Amino acid sequence: MTEKYVYLFGTSQSEGDKEMRNLLGGKGANLAEMAQLGLPVPAGFTITTEVCTYYYNHDQTYPSELKDQVERAIAEVEKTMDMRFGDAANPLLLSVRSGARVSMPGMMETVLNLGLNDEIVQGLIDQSGDPRFCYDVYRRFVQMYGDVVMGLRPEDEKEADPFEALLDAKKHARGVALDSELSAEDLRELVAEFKAEIAKRLDREFPEDPHEQLWNAIGAVFGSWQGQRAIRYREIEGIPHDWGTAVNVQSMVYGNMGDDCATGVAFTRNPSTGEKHLYGEFLINAQGEDVVAGTRTPEPLSELSGQMPQVYEQFQAICDQLEPHYRDMQDVEFTVQKGKLWMLQTRNGKRTGAAAVQIAVDMAAEGLISQEEALLRVTPDQLDQLLHPTFDDASPKDVIAEGLPASPGAATGQVVFNSAEAETQAAEGQQVILVRQETSPEDIGGMDAAQGILTARGGASSHAALVARGMGKCCVAGCESIAIDYHQELFTANGKTVKKGDWISIDGSSGQVMLGQVPTVEPSFSASFDTMMGWADDKRRLAVRTNADTPHDSEVARNFGAEGIGLCRTEHMFFESDRIVAVREMILAADEAGRRQALAKLKPIQRLDFEGIFTAMNGLPVTIRLLDPPLHEFLPHEPAQQEQMAEEMGVPLSQIEAKITSLHEFNPMLGHRGCRLGITYPEIYEMQVEAIFEAAVNVRAKGVNPLPEIMIPLVGTEREFSDLKAMVDRVAVAVGGTIEYLVGTMIEIPRAALLADQIAEQAEFFSFGTNDLTQLTFGYSRDDAGKFLPEYVAQGILADDPFQSLDQEGTGQLVRLGTERGRSARPQLKVGICGEHGGDPSSVGFCHEVGLDYVSCSPYRVPIARLAAAQAALAE
Amino acid sequence: MTEKYVYLFGTSQSEGDKEMRNLLGGKGANLAEMAQLGLPVPAGFTITTEVCTYYYNHDQTYPSELKDQVERAIAEVEKTMDMRFGDAANPLLLSVRSGARVSMPGMMETVLNLGLNDEIVQGLIDQSGDPRFCYDVYRRFVQMYGDVVMGLRPEDEKEADPFEALLDAKKHARGVALDSELSAEDLRELVAEFKAEIAKRLDREFPEDPHEQLWNAIGAVFGSWQGQRAIRYREIEGIPHDWGTAVNVQSMVYGNMGDDCATGVAFTRNPSTGEKHLYGEFLINAQGEDVVAGTRTPEPLSELSGQMPQVYEQFQAICDQLEPHYRDMQDVEFTVQKGKLWMLQTRNGKRTGAAAVQIAVDMAAEGLISQEEALLRVTPDQLDQLLHPTFDDASPKDVIAEGLPASPGAATGQVVFNSAEAETQAAEGQQVILVRQETSPEDIGGMDAAQGILTARGGASSHAALVARGMGKCCVAGCESIAIDYHQELFTANGKTVKKGDWISIDGSSGQVMLGQVPTVEPSFSASFDTMMGWADDKRRLAVRTNADTPHDSEVARNFGAEGIGLCRTEHMFFESDRIVAVREMILAADEAGRRQALAKLKPIQRLDFEGIFTAMNGLPVTIRLLDPPLHEFLPHEPAQQEQMAEEMGVPLSQIEAKITSLHEFNPMLGHRGCRLGITYPEIYEMQVEAIFEAAVNVRAKGVNPLPEIMIPLVGTEREFSDLKAMVDRVAVAVGGTIEYLVGTMIEIPRAALLADQIAEQAEFFSFGTNDLTQLTFGYSRDDAGKFLPEYVAQGILADDPFQSLDQEGTGQLVRLGTERGRSARPQLKVGICGEHGGDPSSVGFCHEVGLDYVSCSPYRVPIARLAAAQAALAE
Repeated sequence: MTEKYVYLFGTSQSEGDKEMRNLLGGKGANLAEMAQLGLPVPAGFTITTEVCTYYYNHDQTYPSELKDQVERAIAEVEKTMDMRFGDAANPLLLSVRSGARVSMPGMMETVLNLGLNDEIVQGLIDQSGDPRFCYDVYRRFVQMYGDVVMGLRPEDEKEADPFEALLDAKKHARGVALDSELSAEDLRELVAEFKAEIAKRLDREFPEDPHEQLWNAIGAVFGSWQGQRAIRYREIEGIPHDWGTAVNVQSMVYGNMGDDCATGVAFTRNPSTGEKHLYGEFLINAQGEDVVAGTRTPEPLSELSGQMPQVYEQFQAICDQLEPHYRDMQDVEFTVQKGKLWMLQTRNGKRTGAAAVQIAVDMAAEGLISQEEALLRVTPDQLDQLLHPTFDDASPKDVIAEGLPASPGAATGQVVFNSAEAETQAAEGQQVILVRQETSPEDIGGMDAAQGILTARGGASSHAALVARGMGKCCVAGCESIAIDYHQELFTANGKTVKKGDWISIDGSSGQVMLGQVPTVEPSFSASFDTMMGWADDKRRLAVRTNADTPHDSEVARNFGAEGIGLCRTEHMFFESDRIVAVREMILAADEAGRRQALAKLKPIQRLDFEGIFTAMNGLPVTIRLLDPPLHEFLPHEPAQQEQMAEEMGVPLSQIEAKITSLHEFNPMLGHRGCRLGITYPEIYEMQVEAIFEAAVNVRAKGVNPLPEIMIPLVGTEREFSDLKAMVDRVAVAVGGTIEYLVGTMIEIPRAALLADQIAEQAEFFSFGTNDLTQLTFGYSRDDAGKFLPEYVAQGILADDPFQSLDQEGTGQLVRLGTERGRSARPQLKVGICGEHGGDPSSVGFCHEVGLDYVSCSPYRVPIARLAAAQAALAE
Repeated sequence: MTEKYVYLFGTSQSEGDKEMRNLLGGKGANLAEMAQLGLPVPAGFTITTEVCTYYYNHDQTYPSELKDQVERAIAEVEKTMDMRFGDAANPLLLSVRSGARVSMPGMMETVLNLGLNDEIVQGLIDQSGDPRFCYDVYRRFVQMYGDVVMGLRPEDEKEADPFEALLDAKKHARGVALDSELSAEDLRELVAEFKAEIAKRLDREFPEDPHEQLWNAIGAVFGSWQGQRAIRYREIEGIPHDWGTAVNVQSMVYGNMGDDCATGVAFTRNPSTGEKHLYGEFLINAQGEDVVAGTRTPEPLSELSGQMPQVYEQFQAICDQLEPHYRDMQDVEFTVQKGKLWMLQTRNGKRTGAAAVQIAVDMAAEGLISQEEALLRVTPDQLDQLLHPTFDDASPKDVIAEGLPASPGAATGQVVFNSAEAETQAAEGQQVILVRQETSPEDIGGMDAAQGILTARGGASSHAALVARGMGKCCVAGCESIAIDYHQELFTANGKTVKKGDWISIDGSSGQVMLGQVPTVEPSFSASFDTMMGWADDKRRLAVRTNADTPHDSEVARNFGAEGIGLCRTEHMFFESDRIVAVREMILAADEAGRRQALAKLKPIQRLDFEGIFTAMNGLPVTIRLLDPPLHEFLPHEPAQQEQMAEEMGVPLSQIEAKITSLHEFNPMLGHRGCRLGITYPEIYEMQVEAIFEAAVNVRAKGVNPLPEIMIPLVGTEREFSDLKAMVDRVAVAVGGTIEYLVGTMIEIPRAALLADQIAEQAEFFSFGTNDLTQLTFGYSRDDAGKFLPEYVAQGILADDPFQSLDQEGTGQLVRLGTERGRSARPQLKVGICGEHGGDPSSVGFCHEVGLDYVSCSPYRVPIARLAAAQAALAE
């Protein structure tokens, strides 16, 4: 039996269906399916993806059977359409399009109107009686074929497209502005000029033989599968290179042959809101590309019912049939040629997060899908859109740079380069974006005042990123392609210069930096959102906590469904302006007594912080991590600020400089921080633990139920933990009375995971700090990895950025091993994760699989983690 | 049966022997052993270490049986010595000394001449007829007892010792300068004044009852086991706190009762050279402390034969008996009282490295010990002494600071603060020590010119340390207690100021920094050394390679017995002055073409380097690590140097500044380095691999047999390795012809150890880079850990500095697991270690146990590794 490489659709029988996506590609499978349903689909055929694979495995040749199969298929199409390919008397024109398993929009080639030559166009004119239309079709074909198949393109960036140049010259010669003002004769001349240009520049003639045209076009589509753009797209989207593309060859239909013609696109439900009504637009006497190009304004689909009532009725009926058939909202394309409706495409429609939730919940209510399916229909990324302001998709964007998406959201404002100015201008009611090389504690005020923060350096766990996420403020960090000149108060990016006061927009979800004011859309939570979250909570096993450092964040997170705090970073409290002075006093102190004096000033403030958080989280566990960053982070970086500090504290500048020098570290990430501070300066942790227990006692007196879980960071040896736990227990007895509490540790040092059994002898809980654990497992500094990580992902050396999605193979081994060894020593050990990965859906899935008790993530990721946890449970 | 707490020695029978060290302490066991051998030991008894344990477990009380046992023991001693304790008519005086299982010199208390009071001293005078001697003994007793047992000490640092103050006052009053010029009457008065001072200041009377004196002294010795100094010493030396000390109570004998008296110390062989002859010194009419104090110059022991021929003969006979008995060189103390020889102590003698080797080899030749025992008799540290110049032990040292022992050796020179000056002065024939905050590539010339390098910052893998070790040059790094003022050209340490031109001495083996010129001793290699190394090579299973970057180092290492190069760091070649310009050109290049142009200049130089190394290592494997450090390390740090670079390269300063800014990293250790450079700038590694193969081809043409093993550093994923191996294989085909080679990787990233099976699919060898692996397993920056690591070791949180001795529990798990997983995928995988641990004896033992194929260490550690490997094999 010979292999079948060609599948017909829309002819007397259709040979494919929607289940054959792998073989026919998405487009081909759906065309066949629509034809099977009896819908009006222009006849055609699909050359399978297997031919593509064969083509690349056999030195770019085709299977020997292919030619015959294509010819027989053309004959079938001719029969159905009652036209003949290459026949001047009654010409059949074809489109040749790619069609992979998954949509790769714009990445591969298309040729339309194929099958024309000088003779056939004359036949077409005779048949249609519309020479201008016919020459326009012909002109478009030669241009597209010349570009796509023959490869006539500008030689360098400076040159204009050669075809467009000729077109412009023609319009100039005729003294007209629009293509549509050119006459049939003008277009005829252009065809000849196009062909002459091709012959001159490529030293090859434009092929007049329609079959030669067809095979060359098929070859061009297969060839585009390995085009640079397509390869890069697959790398980014994680599409295997060996899937290949199908080629769809289909009869052309035209929506631009007169006022009884039209073309349009539609969604079976509103893709922005999810509301259940037909949504779309159309143009009378136009081609599909006119709808896209925006040269004419399309009309809303509802208008079609007035203009073409029968067509509209038929179309509506088709949509009513398609959606239940596919059990999902459909995105369809159609053309009306001389009063006859043709369906050109159907596929599951893309939608906003809000629409995804609405549609899933509605469809479950309609009985179309189950609750479980509804939960699986919404991607966590779609949910993310709901939780932050977003840029209006419809607005144009002038992207000048791309950094790390450090804290989600959308922000627009005028550029300022220092925090003081940010505060002043914000106080005057202006919206500003704070642009800095990197931020430091002095910038807190400015960050708070700004709409968003853009930094040139630092990664997703840089000061800017962490603080911005804590504030729920949009931030793009590590945008290395911008060059800041503080002195001249400007930055440049991709050759563009942005001065102080210029408007920019930054997208903390994509990392994009745009010129001007891009309009934003505020988030809103529908009843459907609540319904869906309720379903998610029913299904999930993992608890979801939040990373929150303030009462405000705690409340936000609790409203988002957080079941406790998994990580309360106490150092952010140290950074705030009313306490940084005392912190610095402590650092400058000559001895323990001096440090204790400064710490005594801090304690009441910390106590108040904890009281607020305990109150906000009444009855829920609050994991408080003791001081983590190295002390030098609390000292000012720049000379002017150091001078100011010296003045404020009444000490000589040289003393401050000497302290900064003595605290300098080559690799602060690996330096004197975390419990290493707790061991060498026990008084710091003691103060913090006292503040925790005093706060717990105080709020309990007011009827609040505090559940502190004290977390020792950066433990690498059993003794670090047991020594500090002994201190906590001692303070608990002295201050905490009957307050119940747990003492546990971050597992963020590889050695701690390897020796988890020893540590769990004493530790009552583990929280995997997968940010640092990833840094150490890979030996990557998150703040510096921007120099090579994008390249690694692009080259496929790493499937994903391991800081965004947990590296399950490497870092995950340590999480699994740490959990197993920890529980081997203490079966009831509570285990969670509090890195950024706690809000990453695939990482949440991994945590579910490993058997963790909870994940903890930033407040705005809580619903995402709830959904991801439910999806993980459903996937089991 | 009652417990036995007291063991007699030197009486009618001796109850202990040398095997009872744990119970009787080293001193007590050996006193008993000598007595068992029939040697003249002043009678006495030992209170066991169990009493010490009991004492601390029972609230500082004694077992009830103890009092009786001590009293009976005193009676036995009285009988033997024919004197009575507390009897004025014929008084027995006692010494009370500590004696732990291992010697803790000076850490615990001693009381001599115990058993005197006003009445008994009179009896002693009547008996001896020498009132001055008797009052001197009495004076010394009251002073020592008042200090040690009663605790009369200066109240603060400013006050002088109260007893010494009275002594000085007395001398002043009598108008004399020396203690010995005071009369018996003066001393009698002093005793009274001492007692009055005690009563006044402590509000307690000096006890006149000898038994009360004895029990208090015993209590003071037990008490000193938990003294601060002793605890600290045990922590440093790793001696368990629960061992406890024994107390030795022994009859006093006197070497200062006239010219028929003497005291001395001796070694049975020369402790400096190992030569076989009695070696020691003595003083006529003196006490032991006079020998130590240096107030009188002792005579060589050989002189004793003329002055006391019979005593000398007896003493020599005793030594000839002791050494074969103990099967080791003995360190003995003796006293001659009125013509009678008394043996006070024997123990295995401390010796220099040279002596240790000589003695072990000689004793094996004499048939006293086996070859295996001889190998175990020399510690690797002793061997280390042989391999570098050392400071003369006999010279006084004024230590003003202590840093990290970064590169062993001893160096003396005049301080200079910049490299240019170091070069100038060295050219003028001066010896200089280069003192820098830290060093950078610009300092290479100065480092080479200097005798040694001292840095205030940076750890044992800092630039200074690595380069110095490569040069075999003495270096003390990270000496944080020195404060350098470049401007004034001075540094301060512990309140002392050292200016440019002042002489200092630095000890790269201990980290000590000393004022002035301390004389050094050059290393020398005896025939015995070669003999011992030959024995070691017969016994060991581990191969020993070296870390060497130059032909010179390679030769040195080969002469030390290296069996190949385990780590050749190519970046050190980049730093040298004739190539740094091309390296910088490459870094500044705008694109790949520019980089290739600069690399083309480097290639012939690298090729020459490799030719030299292959030639030096003819027939032995040479593991070459491709470029490892981040590129910014090759750019100058300081503005002046940046300006100079701009001038030399003819580019604007701003361009250099911009490049430095763009290459800046927060955590360079975790940054854009190692194979991450090889992936993002493939042309760099390509050039290096071409240079390797070209060099191999060239030297083979000259009859040399090159065995290159190309090592990809910092691999964390399988793809990094396989992509770069493909490049190496490609270049090998193009350039290397039939040269045989291996491609392997450093395992220094935890993830690589975890995924070693994947990596070993392609890798032909692993070399554990335990420096970086330790950094990442612990999350410690070696350059910064000086801020807390010493504290961690002091507190016992870590048993050892994990950068000096491999952390077998944590990092070692990854070494073991990486080896097992690697070999599971490739059973013939060659596995070695090339971190600093390759030269650390206990780490070498671990490598043997895990089954590695080789260790690699710096040239000067090669013999140590050979010995350690043999000792590990013998320990099996």
